Amino acid sequence: MSKEIEELIAAADKAIKEERFDDLKEFYTEDAVLVVKPELEVKGKEAIKEAFIKIADYFNNSVVPTQGKMLMVEAGDTVLVLSQTLLDAENKESSEYSMDRRATYVYRKIDGKWLCAIDNSYGTTLLD
Amino acid sequence: MSKEIEELIAAADKAIKEERFDDLKEFYTEDAVLVVKPELEVKGKEAIKEAFIKIADYFNNSVVPTQGKMLMVEAGDTVLVLSQTLLDAENKESSEYSMDRRATYVYRKIDGKWLCAIDNSYGTTLLD
Repeated sequence: MSKEIEELIAAADKAIKEERFDDLKEFYTEDAVLVVKPELEVKGKEAIKEAFIKIADYFNNSVVPTQGKMLMVEAGDTVLVLSQTLLDAENKESSEYSMDRRATYVYRKIDGKWLCAIDNSYGTTLLD
Repeated sequence: MSKEIEELIAAADKAIKEERFDDLKEFYTEDAVLVVKPELEVKGKEAIKEAFIKIADYFNNSVVPTQGKMLMVEAGDTVLVLSQTLLDAENKESSEYSMDRRATYVYRKIDGKWLCAIDNSYGTTLLD
């Protein structure tokens, strides 16, 4: 498994926790897509930053994401990350969102740097 | 959803059913990865072709894959496909493989052509 990508994901989770959203958007490709919730996607670094600000607000600025078991399928400059993603937040009990997810992320190596192109924390549950 | 990718997946399924494995490998990037089963991956077009020949043999040359509900998350030249994949085969009852899967495929547009870079029909169940 790519240690580098694992560390990038941990760093992005830390940026979410510390609400450093300008830092956070730099983990993404220019035309990256974030699945905010089923049937709601946002595209592009700025839109992703704005979405994370709204998500933090929704959770009363208490979001702490962590990754559990993680696997990667690596095909050259393209990597599929499968990850158990746990979201902790003050109001998690009343949230309409699942806090224990099996996420699918796609990373791409662009100009020597790994970046997140697709951030879908819902994984295949979007098919439900 | 990209109609083009949907048609490519249908064409690849048809090639599997008709055992046209030389045609099948052309749907993949040079360094594509196929997850044959949990903890067994093969890499590269030739290795993927050989793996499909073995899979066909395992299922007594009776494999018919079809896709059910399908969703795509599209980020420029990179697309994550989530798909309910159904495998039919004569000996499916006795097979150790799940025949009803939620697959994750990653497609990349290379020189104007969409190709499969990651073929993981097991989706997030690899985390089990």
